[in-house]
Amino acid sequence: MNAPHEAPLSTGATPAGNGAADGRRSALLAGLAQILPDAALLWKPEDTVPYECDGLAAYRQVPMAVALPDTEEQVCAILRLCHRLSVPVVPRGAGTSLSGGAMPIAEGLVLSLAKFKRILKVDPHSRTAVVQPGVRNLAISDAAAPFNLYYAPDPSSQIACTIGGNVSENSGGVHCLKYGLTVHNVLRVRAVTMEGEVVVFGSEAPDSPGLDLLAAMIGSEGMLAVVTEVTVRLIPKPQLAQVIMACFDDVEKGGNAVAAVIAAGIIPAGLEMMDKPATAAVEEFVHAGYDLDAAAILLCESDGTPEEVAEEIERMSAVLTASGCTRIVVSQNEAERLRFWSGRKNAFPAAGRISPDYYCMDGTIPRKHIGTLLRRIEEMERKYALRCINVFHAGDGNMHPLILFDGSDQDEWHRAELFGSDILEACVELGGTVTGEHGVGVEKLNSMCVQFSPSERDAFFGVKAAFDPARLLNPDKAIPTLARCAEYGKMHVKKGLLPHPDLPRF
Amino acid sequence: MNAPHEAPLSTGATPAGNGAADGRRSALLAGLAQILPDAALLWKPEDTVPYECDGLAAYRQVPMAVALPDTEEQVCAILRLCHRLSVPVVPRGAGTSLSGGAMPIAEGLVLSLAKFKRILKVDPHSRTAVVQPGVRNLAISDAAAPFNLYYAPDPSSQIACTIGGNVSENSGGVHCLKYGLTVHNVLRVRAVTMEGEVVVFGSEAPDSPGLDLLAAMIGSEGMLAVVTEVTVRLIPKPQLAQVIMACFDDVEKGGNAVAAVIAAGIIPAGLEMMDKPATAAVEEFVHAGYDLDAAAILLCESDGTPEEVAEEIERMSAVLTASGCTRIVVSQNEAERLRFWSGRKNAFPAAGRISPDYYCMDGTIPRKHIGTLLRRIEEMERKYALRCINVFHAGDGNMHPLILFDGSDQDEWHRAELFGSDILEACVELGGTVTGEHGVGVEKLNSMCVQFSPSERDAFFGVKAAFDPARLLNPDKAIPTLARCAEYGKMHVKKGLLPHPDLPRF
Repeated sequence: MNAPHEAPLSTGATPAGNGAADGRRSALLAGLAQILPDAALLWKPEDTVPYECDGLAAYRQVPMAVALPDTEEQVCAILRLCHRLSVPVVPRGAGTSLSGGAMPIAEGLVLSLAKFKRILKVDPHSRTAVVQPGVRNLAISDAAAPFNLYYAPDPSSQIACTIGGNVSENSGGVHCLKYGLTVHNVLRVRAVTMEGEVVVFGSEAPDSPGLDLLAAMIGSEGMLAVVTEVTVRLIPKPQLAQVIMACFDDVEKGGNAVAAVIAAGIIPAGLEMMDKPATAAVEEFVHAGYDLDAAAILLCESDGTPEEVAEEIERMSAVLTASGCTRIVVSQNEAERLRFWSGRKNAFPAAGRISPDYYCMDGTIPRKHIGTLLRRIEEMERKYALRCINVFHAGDGNMHPLILFDGSDQDEWHRAELFGSDILEACVELGGTVTGEHGVGVEKLNSMCVQFSPSERDAFFGVKAAFDPARLLNPDKAIPTLARCAEYGKMHVKKGLLPHPDLPRF
Repeated sequence: MNAPHEAPLSTGATPAGNGAADGRRSALLAGLAQILPDAALLWKPEDTVPYECDGLAAYRQVPMAVALPDTEEQVCAILRLCHRLSVPVVPRGAGTSLSGGAMPIAEGLVLSLAKFKRILKVDPHSRTAVVQPGVRNLAISDAAAPFNLYYAPDPSSQIACTIGGNVSENSGGVHCLKYGLTVHNVLRVRAVTMEGEVVVFGSEAPDSPGLDLLAAMIGSEGMLAVVTEVTVRLIPKPQLAQVIMACFDDVEKGGNAVAAVIAAGIIPAGLEMMDKPATAAVEEFVHAGYDLDAAAILLCESDGTPEEVAEEIERMSAVLTASGCTRIVVSQNEAERLRFWSGRKNAFPAAGRISPDYYCMDGTIPRKHIGTLLRRIEEMERKYALRCINVFHAGDGNMHPLILFDGSDQDEWHRAELFGSDILEACVELGGTVTGEHGVGVEKLNSMCVQFSPSERDAFFGVKAAFDPARLLNPDKAIPTLARCAEYGKMHVKKGLLPHPDLPRF
């Protein structure tokens, strides 16, 4: 990730004369030394700096210390210690999150689950796998491959991101249109509360008594409990998958084609869109075979039995053609299919390759307005004299415009911020939301003030208090306080960001 | 429902001299009269008695009053009034629930949603319907039928039960093995908190910021908020559905066949089991065409395109034959298919027809142990000298043994209770749970003490407090207090009911 830095970096060292903080730090390190071996405890600035940010490197903070436990007992003991000392804790997986959710707290501990990387069980009969939170997303599918099964949600970072992080952020991916988000593919989560108690959410059974808090835990951005074990659903690999690359001479036509495919009653296995600047950036980098003359391309995947795929490819092709598509290329083998997808999955690194920095947006809009939004973004490029490349999870209207800029140029960064704000306002105006799948973290706290009412935010805090009454677990992320919203309201509420009547709530 | 009565029935009249309660009752009725027209407010015992119980008629209590609002504004005003007066409120749909969840409170108000029966929108493009909570489950599918769509969850009571009640209990049905429970088919719930504030859970978008509390709301047994609007997912009617009636000469073989079908990677659209006493009771009543010589029958449904159905029926038939099935009958037309299902759906009324009373259990077990459990129930029938007829949602291991007895014979009722307790202990011992889909209500409060730890129950109460800090909305249902569990622990904890290590938690 290339994104703007805040200078100068904090070293995490406590200022001279701050006796209380120093005392707490000493007590924490002494306590942790009783729980963990030396190698599993980092506290020198040179060791803790690598943990200063997540994938959204715009926000940085070095923590007081980093703990790397490898047993659940150690996690319980660490949390009990921090609870007793009132030290805030930020859980961390691979740190690939994009909203500052895993950004440390100066006077806090980072609790890394990096050593929890065992696959405990792959059961082909129940089609489940039980894994530790530090297992990489793709490693689950690798382990299930001998049984012809796989784990469906596939974030672009799946080679690096971990299932614990996926649970915390409710991660999606290019195939989630058909196969669902993390919340639809996780059956059970074992976790530890800030008070050091083990709790289990969900089960392998279809229903169980008690409040169903599994979905609340998934996507809770590390605020309710620290994940120590995850049971995921595995699904059979389709017999065949083929992807269409459909080319358009106009971005708006491409956007409208997305709505037309869904309106025809087709749920493609993947439905992604990239505009010309995006394909140009990617093609140079990974040689995906994209049509560089097209103003926009759609990737539409079909999977199933050979008969189902043939029938669906034919139906999708007809709809795309009727929507003004100028060219259709269907992948002829698995290598070609993976090459088409490799371009989409490498769009972010490709952007990093052609620009010193980029600012990734994560808004959602109703599918029928994709074309309109793309047209508006073109106008904004002229207004702010900045380039923007567009990659979309088009099928579910979740778009990721990447605004390109040079962070060393203060004026460019300022224009990029305004550009991003304009895009999100346009999303809300078109009936969408300011965040799709990257989470709220610290980045979108202010947006939560306009999206949720005070009583709704109170309910969120109430649920958090049910698990973490002392507010020590990843505090000040994801849900803004009343005070913060009051301040934001005075400064920033603009016409376009007032709550939309159709906005989702809980 | 025929089930044991508690005598004498309370009339709901306050004892003479209870001035505080009388005063609160007067204030409540006066306040309600300001909000509702006369016809929408019931307070005379002859009017309130019909609300004294839900489908589990073993528990009865006449409420102080019954309110029948027909607008959300009235619901808000009623809840604000009750909150101000500290009057507990029990929301009620059609009252078909089976665990006493809608049982009134003597000093409380029943808030009936019976008048909320408008279907607000059926949208074939987004495949959703927006309905009021008092709409009957089957009425949604009827409204969607012109678009060739339907609402999948189909509780046996679907002709009478309402979608608001389905949301509160997370209702299943014979097709939920393939199409999911209520929680998998509801996208958005609009509801009113005890403090009279409107809150919205979920959205039509695949993900949204904030904690995902929709799943917690679904199945919360009316304890978090009063449902006023539900957006459901509709799915296309399959081109064809066919059901196999498979006959077995031994219940254990039938049970093992269920596990074999699932292990073969088949997810039937329905997979139900009935034993010989159940088919005998049903056949006399609805003439479903069941094989009365079989020790057990399975109903296995396949749906999809004609080709898919033909292929799946063939595969299922092969597995059933290999599992020792003695006869296979495949429905040859829609009328025959519906006749086969009508027997299963009428099993409860059929039991009421052959016995003065019956006690319906709702345990779950891993599918592989179905045969073992059925064998054990046969032994218990001899031990307690009572008959039990068995109907199962076999595909997901949720069984409903119906213990037949005569409630006017105290000894028979006592034996029925012990019989039921033995069945649930056997479920837990075999790795299952004491309740599948009928909810906890008042009936299974004690079981919650053994299934959940104090800290887990604390978290449930914490979530409830986030919505209803005064604990006025359907209080004392579904989650037992610490004191109740302590008392139960002293009296009742037996070997078989100690928490199983694999028990589901949240």
